[in-house]
Amino acid sequence: MSYFDAASSAPLHPVARQALLASLDEGWADPSRLYREGRKARLLLDAAREAAADAVGCRTDELVFTTSGTRAVHEGVSGALAGRRRAGRHLIVSAVEHSSVLHAADAHEGGGGSVTRVGVGRTGAVEPSVYADALRPDTALACLQSANHEVGTVQPVAAVAEACRAAGVPLLVDAAQSLGWGPVEGDWSLLAASAHKWGGPSGVGLLVVRKGVRFAPQGPVDERESGRAAGFENLPGIVAAAASLRAVRAEAEQEAVRLRELTERIRVRVPRLVSDVEVVGDAERRLPGIVTFSCLYVDGETLLHELDREGFSVSSGSSCTSSTLTPSHVLKAMGVLSEGNVRVSLPAGTAEEDVERFLAVLPGAVAGVRAKLGAPVPVTVRQEDALVVDALGKLCPLPVIELAKVIGDVPVGGTVRVLADDEAARLDIPAWCAMRGQEYVGEEPADRGSAYVVRRVS
Amino acid sequence: MSYFDAASSAPLHPVARQALLASLDEGWADPSRLYREGRKARLLLDAAREAAADAVGCRTDELVFTTSGTRAVHEGVSGALAGRRRAGRHLIVSAVEHSSVLHAADAHEGGGGSVTRVGVGRTGAVEPSVYADALRPDTALACLQSANHEVGTVQPVAAVAEACRAAGVPLLVDAAQSLGWGPVEGDWSLLAASAHKWGGPSGVGLLVVRKGVRFAPQGPVDERESGRAAGFENLPGIVAAAASLRAVRAEAEQEAVRLRELTERIRVRVPRLVSDVEVVGDAERRLPGIVTFSCLYVDGETLLHELDREGFSVSSGSSCTSSTLTPSHVLKAMGVLSEGNVRVSLPAGTAEEDVERFLAVLPGAVAGVRAKLGAPVPVTVRQEDALVVDALGKLCPLPVIELAKVIGDVPVGGTVRVLADDEAARLDIPAWCAMRGQEYVGEEPADRGSAYVVRRVS
Repeated sequence: MSYFDAASSAPLHPVARQALLASLDEGWADPSRLYREGRKARLLLDAAREAAADAVGCRTDELVFTTSGTRAVHEGVSGALAGRRRAGRHLIVSAVEHSSVLHAADAHEGGGGSVTRVGVGRTGAVEPSVYADALRPDTALACLQSANHEVGTVQPVAAVAEACRAAGVPLLVDAAQSLGWGPVEGDWSLLAASAHKWGGPSGVGLLVVRKGVRFAPQGPVDERESGRAAGFENLPGIVAAAASLRAVRAEAEQEAVRLRELTERIRVRVPRLVSDVEVVGDAERRLPGIVTFSCLYVDGETLLHELDREGFSVSSGSSCTSSTLTPSHVLKAMGVLSEGNVRVSLPAGTAEEDVERFLAVLPGAVAGVRAKLGAPVPVTVRQEDALVVDALGKLCPLPVIELAKVIGDVPVGGTVRVLADDEAARLDIPAWCAMRGQEYVGEEPADRGSAYVVRRVS
Repeated sequence: MSYFDAASSAPLHPVARQALLASLDEGWADPSRLYREGRKARLLLDAAREAAADAVGCRTDELVFTTSGTRAVHEGVSGALAGRRRAGRHLIVSAVEHSSVLHAADAHEGGGGSVTRVGVGRTGAVEPSVYADALRPDTALACLQSANHEVGTVQPVAAVAEACRAAGVPLLVDAAQSLGWGPVEGDWSLLAASAHKWGGPSGVGLLVVRKGVRFAPQGPVDERESGRAAGFENLPGIVAAAASLRAVRAEAEQEAVRLRELTERIRVRVPRLVSDVEVVGDAERRLPGIVTFSCLYVDGETLLHELDREGFSVSSGSSCTSSTLTPSHVLKAMGVLSEGNVRVSLPAGTAEEDVERFLAVLPGAVAGVRAKLGAPVPVTVRQEDALVVDALGKLCPLPVIELAKVIGDVPVGGTVRVLADDEAARLDIPAWCAMRGQEYVGEEPADRGSAYVVRRVS
């Protein structure tokens, strides 16, 4: 079995396991009590906070433990917005943030605030000058991830932090994907992270609020964690989280080199092994362990099942996977192909053989899915000068498959209209055109769904 | 070492430890993923939910896991209030709820809602008819604990639930102290609890919302736990929590009899062993493991330190203990003595010898504290017909000690005025009068603090 979904949740680090076990016996009492068991718990909590602050590069009194990365983001965003209420109610986020940030932004908007979602380029990174342009006199808070969770692209945090600092706006960095690899560069103001992403246990996040940042925790008062994270502390989890952060950091430099080489193999070889593949995300400025690609004419969920049967656990930003019917907002914002999407995120310690076996298995898995989906014959009708492909009621990746089948029938310079009502077609037909060197003319309204017009160039 | 503060946090149950260890290996992946590791995690989560729902006596789709009992209360109160927004914005709580409930009520009030805090009798229980009188047409939610966390008094939940049901108002029960002993009786609508109170790990609470109860989760959207508890699930903790709940329930009936007998010994023998002691809370309708008493002329924090030195970990609702300068709101609401307060809450499995040793050590500890505090000579000035005791600037329990020293000098029928500016005096001077059979005449304004007037009756 090869688990290649570390960006979702990493297996528990052996050091975390050890620390958790030890603190089960010492760390179950209330650290605010003055008796022996409480004092022991307090010592453990203080030591964990010191270790975590050291890894983040902040003061211990700037860091509180939350119950998840999501909670750290939620409390961080709402507390900073409330603390800066007098500056205004404008919030900036990038379009490719984790859903916890985007949902916090939606909630702010729902409460009457305004939100700017800064777009990204094709690699998934924001352009610092574009981000800076979004800053307004009434901007209360800006958010930017340290690196993207779906494609691994590293964001220009230091440059954006500088622009925010110049504008007097605090920057909250969601460092969930990168904190295990190293501290976040630049002069940020708030930071959120999640322990189970770096091999700590689930149930622990952290929120850092730099001294001097105006911050007003929301929700009912609670005295724990400086009033910034309500509820009895998950102490064994916190101890394990801090211990594993220290441990993964000690191994980070060496392991980064190793994983980067393994993901580079995938980046380079998948397009050679499998036809019609787009590797997405920045080739250079990226996290060591993440590589993401999309396969034309492939249904993401079926491919995931095939790979699972072969012993590989990966995830997908395709539409029609499990809980979602729309493609990943990240791939959408990047404007890249979303169908047949696969994110490989290698946990620390991944063996080279496992990656080689993945590369050996992938072409057959993709071919199998394509063969299954290749069957349907497109209904084509010549209408005036344009060919029409009726893909209404057909889900991703069928509209693109049918388009590909008829493009050869279109005279060079002529157009074909694809009628489709699946949301993914809006993203994937233009992406297919870009990959195939055909011209995407545009989308037109239709009785049902939309008509996507494509001109054959070559 | 004897840990007698289970009501604050119980040591991890061996079954919880075992379940936690097992699920560290099987339960670290994201349960919403479809690959093998995700499916395993999902199975564990489903099984834990079934076990917990079975223990609560609810449907599995009515129960979600939160990250603490406090969070369960916060989310439960805010979600129920928002869901019943159209009914009105009136909230009822008892005056002796856990701080998480009272803080949620304060937040509601801060946001423009109205709150009724229903008082309790001298045993700490609400009177169902008094509670029912607080119900109004605009009442959106009512809250009542199943049993009090400081004095162990069991609340008449079933009767209050019936009154709420008749008025069409949902009742939220904070079952943190009692869920390990058995399901909550009556026709309640919402229930919150905390795993580390029943020997589960910290970092896990549960929130039950009965089908049909209007509920609108607040805060940013999150898809986990039916949208009612944001953040990645603390799965090993959840598995351990459910396993230990099942385990403590299996032992509950027998252990309740045993602990009840041990706390009864304390209830009966402490007043015989130590002079000027008031045992508080209901003698009959009470939790098996909790017994609380207050000692006149004793400073709670010093007594806790003395007991800690003797190897006993207990807590106190006295003022001037650690983080607080006001007496416990519970003791205040009950109108009982708060000085020298000690809560003994026995964890399951407490040995009889330990309780006997506590009873052997307590009288000396109390006498030691009293001896230390007995020294100061009160400044008394005869003024008109009344004696004046100047206890300004003196903290609990000194004002009462000084009162006791001069009462013999007051002619029967005459009065003494105690000048004091310590908050606890307002509660403790009337309580001393009740215990001593003297008449508490009332409080009068003074240049500094207040003058508490006491008439000597005998």
